[in-house]
Amino acid sequence: MNKDWLIGFLEGEGNFNVILSRSYKKRNPNYSFEFYPILQFRIFLREDDLPVLEKIKTFLSVGKIYRKSYNYSRKKGIMSSDQFVFYVTSSKDLLKIKDIFQTGEFHTKKKKDMIYFFKILDLKLKSRHLTRESYDQIILLATSMNSENRGNWKSKEVKLLTE
Amino acid sequence: MNKDWLIGFLEGEGNFNVILSRSYKKRNPNYSFEFYPILQFRIFLREDDLPVLEKIKTFLSVGKIYRKSYNYSRKKGIMSSDQFVFYVTSSKDLLKIKDIFQTGEFHTKKKKDMIYFFKILDLKLKSRHLTRESYDQIILLATSMNSENRGNWKSKEVKLLTE
Repeated sequence: MNKDWLIGFLEGEGNFNVILSRSYKKRNPNYSFEFYPILQFRIFLREDDLPVLEKIKTFLSVGKIYRKSYNYSRKKGIMSSDQFVFYVTSSKDLLKIKDIFQTGEFHTKKKKDMIYFFKILDLKLKSRHLTRESYDQIILLATSMNSENRGNWKSKEVKLLTE
Repeated sequence: MNKDWLIGFLEGEGNFNVILSRSYKKRNPNYSFEFYPILQFRIFLREDDLPVLEKIKTFLSVGKIYRKSYNYSRKKGIMSSDQFVFYVTSSKDLLKIKDIFQTGEFHTKKKKDMIYFFKILDLKLKSRHLTRESYDQIILLATSMNSENRGNWKSKEVKLLTE
């Protein structure tokens, strides 16, 4: 597996996801803002493609793989096989893949997502506490991200944000 | 764009599709068998990813791009943007991409689809008319292909085949 293959594959299957969480503030009352950005790089694949997720994990030397069960759907009569998800969530690990990704050659609009995603990471890590300015920038970037984040737009959290 | 990127991308987004058509025999009564194999290599992307399909078309120097309208779905209130589809269907063009793909390094189970797909192409082209033996092999290969062809399994044509 080489980097060009990986970039090609993640342009199709990878997902740069920024969750704007409200619940963080509840647990951290000193946090000054409404939303807290949580970053996740993810690849969801069907269970029989687990080997490629393991190869990717080895190649990147970070990340975790979880099984996502569709047992509930199956019980309801919806044909669906389980998935495996490759996740990178810790800032330390995201910084590692940032170097790999940012020097890769992207060809789809996923490039924009990738750039915004790592900008948000940088803003989040720049100071121990977010400033109003960096917070506003994060919100703007996160809500300008592409299609792959549509899931979020429908979530309660970003609904509140855009209402 | 290079080959490794393309293989990575098509392992996520590419689709090796074999249609087992019944209607061919109706138009060609001399054809000896029930089903006629039609081969399609396809990549479906959302309309805002048209530029990457154009790059792929240029890179492979074969294929056509069509718009797939979801106007009907939208009229019914389903949010969906149009898609563009990159198609390679003629045997001549499929032979060209065969060389590129077969020397590429695959990492997912799509490799199996790719191999079966081009085996079917070879069997189809080997003699002017299919023999019973090559026909049987084609049917076996086509019905052993992977997930991406599930759409077919549900189609009338292959339903009839598996009943």
